[in-house]
Amino acid sequence: MSGRPKRFDETEALDAAMSVFWIHGYDATSYDDLVRYVGIGRQSLYATFGNKRTLYVKCIERYADTVTQRAVDLLGEPGRPLRNIRRWFTQLSDVGLGRERRGCLLTNTAVELAPHDPALARLVRTRLRRVEKALHETLMRAAEVGELAQDVDTRMLASYLLNAAQGLLVMNRLGVGRKKLREIAAVTLSVIQMDSHTKFLELRS
Amino acid sequence: MSGRPKRFDETEALDAAMSVFWIHGYDATSYDDLVRYVGIGRQSLYATFGNKRTLYVKCIERYADTVTQRAVDLLGEPGRPLRNIRRWFTQLSDVGLGRERRGCLLTNTAVELAPHDPALARLVRTRLRRVEKALHETLMRAAEVGELAQDVDTRMLASYLLNAAQGLLVMNRLGVGRKKLREIAAVTLSVIQMDSHTKFLELRS
Repeated sequence: MSGRPKRFDETEALDAAMSVFWIHGYDATSYDDLVRYVGIGRQSLYATFGNKRTLYVKCIERYADTVTQRAVDLLGEPGRPLRNIRRWFTQLSDVGLGRERRGCLLTNTAVELAPHDPALARLVRTRLRRVEKALHETLMRAAEVGELAQDVDTRMLASYLLNAAQGLLVMNRLGVGRKKLREIAAVTLSVIQMDSHTKFLELRS
Repeated sequence: MSGRPKRFDETEALDAAMSVFWIHGYDATSYDDLVRYVGIGRQSLYATFGNKRTLYVKCIERYADTVTQRAVDLLGEPGRPLRNIRRWFTQLSDVGLGRERRGCLLTNTAVELAPHDPALARLVRTRLRRVEKALHETLMRAAEVGELAQDVDTRMLASYLLNAAQGLLVMNRLGVGRKKLREIAAVTLSVIQMDSHTKFLELRS
């Protein structure tokens, strides 16, 4: 409004704030923390993004448009549909490596804030529904190309896979190691094999 | 220490504090909130349970010894082992009905606090491991009595089921309804049926 040139990149500032919330959660992050981590003045931060909750909402949307969108894109890649789903689960199993066990900002928000903040709960549900839709579409393509039986309930399978993904992201926050997460992912994915029970038997370590 | 008779029941006070943390989380709960909800004086609360974090640790232990223990007891009940597991998943799907979408205090702690508090992370992992052990023992009994193939990897299956349970508890915080949670549970449990793929096909709604 002042016509004064901005001295910071809004997207970079938003990404920095998103990382702080993602790692530390909402309530444990003070506005002072945000000012310090984002590295711009309190007044500039406030003028651009509003109060802590307003900024948090923008961070969730930014997260959904970048991190979550990459998962959606991966699921929609050409080639064998089930391979895309397997690749996503491999990423979920490796998510915490060398990082701060961030888990997923949507999962973290669901657990920390959703029961007490209906608007945030709606936002998270809407954004997770896009992932579920991408899973559903991928599973339908799998059925079309013969990777799944034509008559499986792809909608139920999509919900099931999203649920297992939430579990893996909780386990990541808890510091459970990659080997175990990969085993869980393998059993989870055994359901979407044509000959699932036999495949599961072959997974034994 | 003063010899003065206690004017409150410590277990009741602890249960009240546990409920506050369970519903609202750690960082969103102030000591003032605890004093108000527990209904005893600040000094008595502090003298009995210490500071907020000390009290939180006692609440997690109380939770594990009561709520979590009930799950362990259910899994160990005599009769058909897989029925016990199915009953636990039915409970998980119904967990939020008529309540405050509490989810599970261990799951909530994993997501909110574990990455930044190694001692709490250890405590939660230890307590969840007991559930995993109970699942493992139940699955081994299932294999013994012929409810599962003898050569399935019961350890991997136990981790898988615990992971799916974490997912359901995230979904509960998010306000996902019982019908959908039950569908997810049904697909999850299809893995522990002898003829899992066929069973899964029968689940279609």
